[in-house]
Amino acid sequence: MGPNAGLNQLPWSQVTNPYKPVEILADEQIEAICAGAFDILENVGMDILQEEARGLFKKAGAKVDGERVRIDRSIIQEAMKNAPSTLTLHARNPAHTLDFSPGKISFGSVASAPNVSDIVGGRRVGNQEDFRKLLKLCQSLNTIHFIAGYPVEPVDLAPRVRHLDCIADMALLTDKIYHAYALGRERIKDAQEITRIAHGCADWGEFSKKVRLFTIINTSSPLRLDSVMIEGAFEMARHNQLCVITPFTLAGAMAPITVAGALALQHAEALAGMTLLQLFNPGTPVVYGGFTSNVDMKSGSPAFGTPENAQTALIGAQLARKVGVPFRSSNANASNCVDAQATYESQMSIWSAVMGQANMIMHGAGWLEGGLCASFEKLIIDAEMLQMMQKFLQPPEINVDTLALEAIKDVGPGGHYFGTAHTLERYETAFYSPIVSDWNNFEKWEEAGSHSATERAHEIYQKLLLEYQAPELDPSRKEEIEAFVAKRKEEGGAQDGDF
Amino acid sequence: MGPNAGLNQLPWSQVTNPYKPVEILADEQIEAICAGAFDILENVGMDILQEEARGLFKKAGAKVDGERVRIDRSIIQEAMKNAPSTLTLHARNPAHTLDFSPGKISFGSVASAPNVSDIVGGRRVGNQEDFRKLLKLCQSLNTIHFIAGYPVEPVDLAPRVRHLDCIADMALLTDKIYHAYALGRERIKDAQEITRIAHGCADWGEFSKKVRLFTIINTSSPLRLDSVMIEGAFEMARHNQLCVITPFTLAGAMAPITVAGALALQHAEALAGMTLLQLFNPGTPVVYGGFTSNVDMKSGSPAFGTPENAQTALIGAQLARKVGVPFRSSNANASNCVDAQATYESQMSIWSAVMGQANMIMHGAGWLEGGLCASFEKLIIDAEMLQMMQKFLQPPEINVDTLALEAIKDVGPGGHYFGTAHTLERYETAFYSPIVSDWNNFEKWEEAGSHSATERAHEIYQKLLLEYQAPELDPSRKEEIEAFVAKRKEEGGAQDGDF
Repeated sequence: MGPNAGLNQLPWSQVTNPYKPVEILADEQIEAICAGAFDILENVGMDILQEEARGLFKKAGAKVDGERVRIDRSIIQEAMKNAPSTLTLHARNPAHTLDFSPGKISFGSVASAPNVSDIVGGRRVGNQEDFRKLLKLCQSLNTIHFIAGYPVEPVDLAPRVRHLDCIADMALLTDKIYHAYALGRERIKDAQEITRIAHGCADWGEFSKKVRLFTIINTSSPLRLDSVMIEGAFEMARHNQLCVITPFTLAGAMAPITVAGALALQHAEALAGMTLLQLFNPGTPVVYGGFTSNVDMKSGSPAFGTPENAQTALIGAQLARKVGVPFRSSNANASNCVDAQATYESQMSIWSAVMGQANMIMHGAGWLEGGLCASFEKLIIDAEMLQMMQKFLQPPEINVDTLALEAIKDVGPGGHYFGTAHTLERYETAFYSPIVSDWNNFEKWEEAGSHSATERAHEIYQKLLLEYQAPELDPSRKEEIEAFVAKRKEEGGAQDGDF
Repeated sequence: MGPNAGLNQLPWSQVTNPYKPVEILADEQIEAICAGAFDILENVGMDILQEEARGLFKKAGAKVDGERVRIDRSIIQEAMKNAPSTLTLHARNPAHTLDFSPGKISFGSVASAPNVSDIVGGRRVGNQEDFRKLLKLCQSLNTIHFIAGYPVEPVDLAPRVRHLDCIADMALLTDKIYHAYALGRERIKDAQEITRIAHGCADWGEFSKKVRLFTIINTSSPLRLDSVMIEGAFEMARHNQLCVITPFTLAGAMAPITVAGALALQHAEALAGMTLLQLFNPGTPVVYGGFTSNVDMKSGSPAFGTPENAQTALIGAQLARKVGVPFRSSNANASNCVDAQATYESQMSIWSAVMGQANMIMHGAGWLEGGLCASFEKLIIDAEMLQMMQKFLQPPEINVDTLALEAIKDVGPGGHYFGTAHTLERYETAFYSPIVSDWNNFEKWEEAGSHSATERAHEIYQKLLLEYQAPELDPSRKEEIEAFVAKRKEEGGAQDGDF
């Protein structure tokens, strides 16, 4: 139980899906997508915009022609033998360590939104104050297992030093796993340094023994890997930190308009990225990221939580199982406010991610507008939805006590169970107890002000913020982090680009 | 395609779930619940409040002691051999006939709400005008496969004649399968007469050859079957019409507080009801209805779409498969307005019902407040959610064309797919096209008035009502129905009770 026992939270717990994964394609269909991906990598190839990376591919036997790299399937199959099939991500608080074994699911916060909103303050450009508030809420909500990136981009911080303040905030305001952006080498090095200090690792040898940090590597679909991302990924892989390779394959735009074609492209790009990291540092941890959704062909806008998106989430998980690595999915929607659309699109995303047994669900709480806005109220409503899934995944016990045959005999026909011993022994913990849901009848609900779930979520997040307590950290580590940040700021921050 | 082609509807189609049903209990756990149910029926028994019914049980070998009937499992197993494992429900429009085979799913409207609401008119007591509007919408929405009962109770109609107007409206304003309330013998006889005329059946022999009408039989949990329901059910079974036996087993109130105990009670009551009908008329069609949810132990209010409710929906479907009969579930929620709560609770219900492969999903569209209110906007939003499931259940084709390898070669790295031939050939039909969802960016959405999904649903239902067209019916049948209703009204309607 976190410090916020006042809120009806389930205790911290990673989620285990004990049921069989839902698989919507037959093995031979999965094989066909895999064969398509190999065909793409062998015959079209990828543009790899970084010299060292091309050298690694060449050394492994790939055909390099300018920036274009054509990769035979044998190279991929050989390299991917080194990719770990399961992972443990160590948080600085060991209680918040995450297991990415099959059937284990972790939920992350929203990440990378340029805007932020709440129903009282309205929509505004991302800033440090809201960034910090969101981090505090993520720390306080047990069902948010990791910080998936900057919940909102603090645009008021200068690009070259932003990562220093942000990573320090993540390390100090939370004790959960967090993400660092692979924007070149320097920012990743800084993030690793702060994380090393926060974890109390004496040196890089100790740091590298465990996975403590992760980054998302997006391909520039179709079929391109940029230098900035590659160099960040190399710095991560150098210390055995986790890279999640996520192609940005929106069907109809950067990928073919068919689910099959978009997935073939996704699979090719994911394999190329994961292979590159195995060539750089065999055994480095990787996760297969699936993000294939579709655009709205009328407006060109990306759509999320669509039927096709639910299918790609389930099929993506099948493809990752085929490769033998953990899988990443998302809780996404394209609504512009916290309404029924935001909710049903999110539920389509959550159910498909959870039933497919994605290990890592990015943007689990707080994402709105196809990722262009972080919403305080959506964060709370998502936490409720994720908790409900967590409880749903705990199957009921079936035994003499729970079958209640004695109670049924005692009550007999026509009675009720409100006052029975069987009920009284269990009534406090028998059922899921909600955060946001209001189960009062209409009259009581009306009397209390007719507040919608979104309005109630607003009050809840404000209360949670008031109750926030910073997680413990050895004061000397805190000082060391602050000193490091100050020193790097004096040096001008990252010099390798204004990303 | 219905007459409302202006709306982005999927064409009429029953839903097929081609995937394996999600099963959350092991076989031996299902066996334990079944054994518990037998134990209950053998040792506690049920109060059967109708003499003919007790006589049937007695004749089959049950122990009858006053109203209490104790039923040996051998009686149930023997009788249930006659229950059809699959059904076809014939609508007067053959295109709207429903198949209850394994994997086939049908969505019904909201039913039996005493109140009705829309965001402009507010919440009001049920009335004929709203009743008729809701029927018209149900006819117009392709994803509503059957009328699950009176979408709202028209309280302005006198109880003894209400069923005459209502059944006539269902037969005339829609051409889909509908429900008749088993409130004694007379109302069912009237409903069958109207349906016989609507279907153009010359006599009862022809009528009885097909299932054309259904009724929900609720037990008075715990362990009671009332005379009114039994007599209605007998009139249905006499003509081979469908009875859906649905125990009203709310865990913590009318049923034990544990999921296992509530399901053991549900199973006992469902078996008793289905067995009774097989004893009355062997081979009469029955459906196993699951409605087990839990009450909020703080307020005593029923809760729906909870994690426990999702589990009982999936386990109920397993129990029905064990018995070998079709299964009924619901799309339920306990919210007091059309907000995020209404939506996520509904999604929990829909996903568990669909993944468990319930054949019949009652209250599929329009239910609010735990069933106490029918909402016009929720009806539209549910239709969207059900359509999304329908599309999701159509797995993508995986073949040379859809894998798009030629297009991927043509576009190569760094391009895009907007203008390719592969895209242009498919862009109009490639993706699910929504009714309610707005995928415009924030600026365009704001410019258009910042309407939530609920507000947009309001406009959609009003537009749909304007476009409504009555389904065709031979004028002589219409006249005959109207004459029958007039005659029965003159006779004072049903004389067997003011239900």
